Amino acid sequence: MTTLPNWLHRAAANFPDKLAVRCGTTDWTFAELDQQATALAASLAARGIRAGERVALLASNGLPFVASVHALTRLGGVLVPLNIRLTDDDLRWQLADVKAAHLLHEAHFADRAANIAHLSEENTLPMHPVILAADIQTPSIGGKKAASWDDIDLDAPQAIIYTSGTTGQPKGAIITYGMQWWNAVGSALNLGHDPADRWLAVLPFFHIGGLSILWRSVIYGIGVVVHQRFDAASVNQSIQEDSVTIASVVSVMVQRMLDDLGESVYPQSLRCLLLGGGPAPETLLRACAARGIPVVQTYGMTETCSQAVTLAPVDALRKLGSAGRPLASVELRVWNDDHEADPDEAGEIQLRGPTITPGYAERPDATARAWQAGWFATGDIGTLDPEGFLYVLDRRSDLIISGGENVYPAEIEAALLAHPDVLEAGVTGVADAQWGQAPIAFVHLREGATADADTLHTFLATRLAHYKQPRTIYLTGPLPRNAAGKLLRRELGKLVEPPPA
Amino acid sequence: MTTLPNWLHRAAANFPDKLAVRCGTTDWTFAELDQQATALAASLAARGIRAGERVALLASNGLPFVASVHALTRLGGVLVPLNIRLTDDDLRWQLADVKAAHLLHEAHFADRAANIAHLSEENTLPMHPVILAADIQTPSIGGKKAASWDDIDLDAPQAIIYTSGTTGQPKGAIITYGMQWWNAVGSALNLGHDPADRWLAVLPFFHIGGLSILWRSVIYGIGVVVHQRFDAASVNQSIQEDSVTIASVVSVMVQRMLDDLGESVYPQSLRCLLLGGGPAPETLLRACAARGIPVVQTYGMTETCSQAVTLAPVDALRKLGSAGRPLASVELRVWNDDHEADPDEAGEIQLRGPTITPGYAERPDATARAWQAGWFATGDIGTLDPEGFLYVLDRRSDLIISGGENVYPAEIEAALLAHPDVLEAGVTGVADAQWGQAPIAFVHLREGATADADTLHTFLATRLAHYKQPRTIYLTGPLPRNAAGKLLRRELGKLVEPPPA
Repeated sequence: MTTLPNWLHRAAANFPDKLAVRCGTTDWTFAELDQQATALAASLAARGIRAGERVALLASNGLPFVASVHALTRLGGVLVPLNIRLTDDDLRWQLADVKAAHLLHEAHFADRAANIAHLSEENTLPMHPVILAADIQTPSIGGKKAASWDDIDLDAPQAIIYTSGTTGQPKGAIITYGMQWWNAVGSALNLGHDPADRWLAVLPFFHIGGLSILWRSVIYGIGVVVHQRFDAASVNQSIQEDSVTIASVVSVMVQRMLDDLGESVYPQSLRCLLLGGGPAPETLLRACAARGIPVVQTYGMTETCSQAVTLAPVDALRKLGSAGRPLASVELRVWNDDHEADPDEAGEIQLRGPTITPGYAERPDATARAWQAGWFATGDIGTLDPEGFLYVLDRRSDLIISGGENVYPAEIEAALLAHPDVLEAGVTGVADAQWGQAPIAFVHLREGATADADTLHTFLATRLAHYKQPRTIYLTGPLPRNAAGKLLRRELGKLVEPPPA
Repeated sequence: MTTLPNWLHRAAANFPDKLAVRCGTTDWTFAELDQQATALAASLAARGIRAGERVALLASNGLPFVASVHALTRLGGVLVPLNIRLTDDDLRWQLADVKAAHLLHEAHFADRAANIAHLSEENTLPMHPVILAADIQTPSIGGKKAASWDDIDLDAPQAIIYTSGTTGQPKGAIITYGMQWWNAVGSALNLGHDPADRWLAVLPFFHIGGLSILWRSVIYGIGVVVHQRFDAASVNQSIQEDSVTIASVVSVMVQRMLDDLGESVYPQSLRCLLLGGGPAPETLLRACAARGIPVVQTYGMTETCSQAVTLAPVDALRKLGSAGRPLASVELRVWNDDHEADPDEAGEIQLRGPTITPGYAERPDATARAWQAGWFATGDIGTLDPEGFLYVLDRRSDLIISGGENVYPAEIEAALLAHPDVLEAGVTGVADAQWGQAPIAFVHLREGATADADTLHTFLATRLAHYKQPRTIYLTGPLPRNAAGKLLRRELGKLVEPPPA
């Protein structure tokens, strides 16, 4: 067991007056953030939250989210960040599945929180609004306090983040403090670290790509500029005015930022647009390269605590389209059936190292399936070139990534199959200029059915989150299946004429 | 147990053509260094060196030293670097004490190696010259090899480095790979990390301050510019011409570098002179500050794997004379008897964290004395100011640091007491413009003794390393002692008139 001094305490001691978080017109220094976390932790402890409990959080990007993360660390609680884009049914299922003991929520989410906290007639989770201290005064921090500060145990779980596997059955991936630490260190060794860095956070904190920025902030002692939602003009303005040096983004954002930027240029101080969330269109990468925008591609997922493989800035142009090489704390192999693939031979991307999840909460079977002979099997397909650069060919077998969100065909298919007229349903992704990919559905109706595509769109509207709604529903004959009856999703497109773009 | 991919392999894969080591007119890329280490490891394995064996190395700063460090990692051998400034008797004692299984040596040290390897009539250690591969060709490194590369176990011992404790009895401090890793990471978080950094290594590799540079090189993937010995003009030239960004130095070096620099200035690219090896004269710090030379003071020792506390560049002027704050992976407290000291109250500096040694090889008692209630007791005295900045008042009770080397009074006293005419001997340090401190001795002769100071200087000449020779030997009456008869070294100066400067 390795323990480290609490990172936020340390940052507050070392840089009390340095910007820790900027959100809208509010700035918190590290001393203020530390004090907010302390105050919130005290209030949550008074409300009965105890070490080891799993505590769900319903909040969008903002100060309440940031304070909650560090308050829970102070208490030893395990954060379960809820994806506010999911339906209430989805969230209620997650709360029950994860055995949450409490539900924190931003004040303006009170109604929604009450709805999802109501797990059954007999069981309503205790709910607590996240209240921030009204008057922040920079505390006096003397060297004497150092010994009484809490340690962080790197093996302890920091969060449980739900992710749908290939089966569409959501699973809570355990994120330890060690994963956050090693990921932050690996990223710094790859991208470089400047104590004057500022990281723009517009990815949702309830996803790993956003959450990990909050940890880098306190581990490095650098400021985070928080955006509650993505707006290309606001992000561009923030890059110009907030001394942003690094921003984590997905392709759809970069495209809109470019459109908004027009003929302007980013300041030299912007040294990295860290681009995750699925393969990026090469045209976009070339457009950025041509304009000198420092895009750094990366590959990772919840289970790898965000970045696992990143293209170093120095290789960005030479290896356009590659996700790069594994971070210093990650090992990678491409596994083809029973052997390690030769260069340029495709296989499953497998990873190991201290940034990889130990497994899924309450899912020993899924954990055992993911970990094969000491390696984490991602399900994604890729190749290594002769120099060891990774090219990701396919995210999980059938995963669709739309605007940075994972969309699992099986979940949409299950929702369609719940309609009495639907005999077979198949979903696949198509390229989408705006979102990268979008789901489309193919439905084989029962004999005598009266439903049409509009009926089915309406049926799905309340059953699936907005970003999971199929762009198009095609009514077709029998769906393609292999000899074992397994749906062949890649052949769905052939059912219609002309095939979907 | 945390394991990481072998750092040199990783650097060779990621930056095969990047400069790893420059020594004189020879440059090695990471691919070449990797190949040298592989070739040397194979040759050493053929000579019978096995995993777990302790392997002493007699070499000065240079390519053979660098190759040996990484070859031993490849083999799982534990490096015991020998201080070439010590006497042959000292080194022979260390070889026996550490139970070394082999002695590696630079070719030109063959005679000396033969002498010290001859432990007794019956027992001569196997000796092996360090031979470097004559023709280096950049190996082809394909992604496929990743899986077969050796891992580094962070708990495994990398080296055993001898350090004299306050008693003057040398002890071998165990240095694990984890200590090197965490120290490198802590340093990067504090000083920043730029993939284009180059670190100048003129401190001896057989001390922790030099050795740790070699590990930072492969962990960060940055080049090291090696100087075999300190020469102010050569170091200044190297800073100008070798794109050096960081250099590890001790005070005596900085003073000479300033003298040599004259009216010239260092290039902007030099971002840090990392100044260790004991308290620095404030006049020197002010002279550097006035000239814009980025001196960063640091406090550490063998047992803390070099830097444990470092003044961040941003605080260098505001906190002149302070050693700064603990690195991210280190916790510090000042312990006064039975309580944690208040700000500005003096006490013993105690440390904990993954950069601190687990203990001394074959010295359970010394290990138990050093580790008190989970904290490593340094024996050094210091204070924390109200902002938590450390000021080191006194290195271990009576330790003298001369030109960056530790000199222990008890060892010199023991050598003097071996002379039949010496009844009492006491040694203390005095300020020395060139070396920071120098030892001086006070001797109370037996009745009827005929020895004089010259006799005793001659007597010591063959018994102590050059840097341990007292600058002056004063013949006095009885030495000051406390009620328990313990020598009061701080009062020795009062015995002579005028007191030593």
